[in-house]
Amino acid sequence: MTEASKNQTLVHYAAQIGDNSLIMGHRMSEWCFHAPSLEMEMALMNCALDLIGQARELYSYAAASDNSDRTEDDFAYLRDEQDFRNALLAELPNGDWGDTIVRLFFISAYNRLFYTALAKSKDSELAAIGAKSLKEVTYHLRFSGEWLIRLGDGTEESHQRVQQSVNNLWMFTGELFTMSEAENALLKDGISVDVATLRADWDQTVSQVFEQATLSIPDNDWAQSGGKTRGHHTEHLGYILADMQFMQRRYPGCEW
Amino acid sequence: MTEASKNQTLVHYAAQIGDNSLIMGHRMSEWCFHAPSLEMEMALMNCALDLIGQARELYSYAAASDNSDRTEDDFAYLRDEQDFRNALLAELPNGDWGDTIVRLFFISAYNRLFYTALAKSKDSELAAIGAKSLKEVTYHLRFSGEWLIRLGDGTEESHQRVQQSVNNLWMFTGELFTMSEAENALLKDGISVDVATLRADWDQTVSQVFEQATLSIPDNDWAQSGGKTRGHHTEHLGYILADMQFMQRRYPGCEW
Repeated sequence: MTEASKNQTLVHYAAQIGDNSLIMGHRMSEWCFHAPSLEMEMALMNCALDLIGQARELYSYAAASDNSDRTEDDFAYLRDEQDFRNALLAELPNGDWGDTIVRLFFISAYNRLFYTALAKSKDSELAAIGAKSLKEVTYHLRFSGEWLIRLGDGTEESHQRVQQSVNNLWMFTGELFTMSEAENALLKDGISVDVATLRADWDQTVSQVFEQATLSIPDNDWAQSGGKTRGHHTEHLGYILADMQFMQRRYPGCEW
Repeated sequence: MTEASKNQTLVHYAAQIGDNSLIMGHRMSEWCFHAPSLEMEMALMNCALDLIGQARELYSYAAASDNSDRTEDDFAYLRDEQDFRNALLAELPNGDWGDTIVRLFFISAYNRLFYTALAKSKDSELAAIGAKSLKEVTYHLRFSGEWLIRLGDGTEESHQRVQQSVNNLWMFTGELFTMSEAENALLKDGISVDVATLRADWDQTVSQVFEQATLSIPDNDWAQSGGKTRGHHTEHLGYILADMQFMQRRYPGCEW
């Protein structure tokens, strides 16, 4: 790889991780003033803030790795749907409280393993972002795991509903462990995380919490994918971007 | 005042302060993913979180001062429009970025003076809430003040637009300095803040920032009021509550 092409790959890699954070942050923030209590309201807003903060750091690093004069905001507001490389799981609608908790749990269990590994990246900037983000996602995992147990091991209705959420979302978890082009290209220099190897530990985390939550792991192994590796998204991402990018598209540069 | 009636007055007083925070927090959170940049996004969400946190502490204290078994969530989700005693300024729609900044500046300039005084309350719980909130609103004031200067002293268009925001919102500022029944009743024991006396300092803060922002203070002295003292609100509060209270009204108690 030439230096220029390596830099370009680094841009894609940092932006791809940032996309997961930004889109998940958007979904979490949609709970603003619709959560079941003020305490949960604040917990979800704090998760959203953590995720947006991660996206900013990753986009800033992507922008700095580039030779263009793009900024973090260009990555968030001026890219099209197919440029976003978040996993489909992050862009699905929040659904009910159970769906929200299950999705947050699946992604946070992945994020804890991912950022643990990223903290050891040979790229010192990514390693620093990994170490900082790890503290945040560890809290998200604990919060969502405790709720999963409360819902799964709660009333008959809450158990059935949250098991249904698990069944519906399960097919979107496999994509988290597929390797993108950028991930493969940066692997041998020890820059990127080999996410395929995280699967076994993720399965173990999920099994442990599911056991306490009296929930069953679906036996359907078919995995939906396309967002992370090819930028092929569900219809939902388009609505998120339309909402989020409106002002910057309407008033380019936003001069005051 | 009997002990019971004093406790009841304290409930009203703490809830009234909390109402301002909760309703302003709701308005700030509506900027989620509609702000002009990721940085402002996070700044506004942090303001929203501060305000909701203040509301929680004040509602918790209101609930604890009561002899009933109400919780902080009862105050947020189970009271009707006329029970909310926020100033009308807090419930007005966000409008454009200039309207949002002007409103945040007016309220934060008030809040800084208010919480400085509340931190000296003879009620130690209110004094503690005052001291903690003061740090937060001081940041809100700096953030909104800097933006006000940037907009007022910016382009011709931004100047004209933000001057128009000032002109539109000015008539809602007077209500901040009117005294409610609860405020009057708790005054002689040194528990409540004499908000009428804050006006001169508020005028001075506003004048100083307006001078830097090259903005003019409107000479219209007529003040709109009714929210704080009588629970007579604009139509806008009803929409906020419909949005915020839906889940708790639909599923009373939210059992899992």
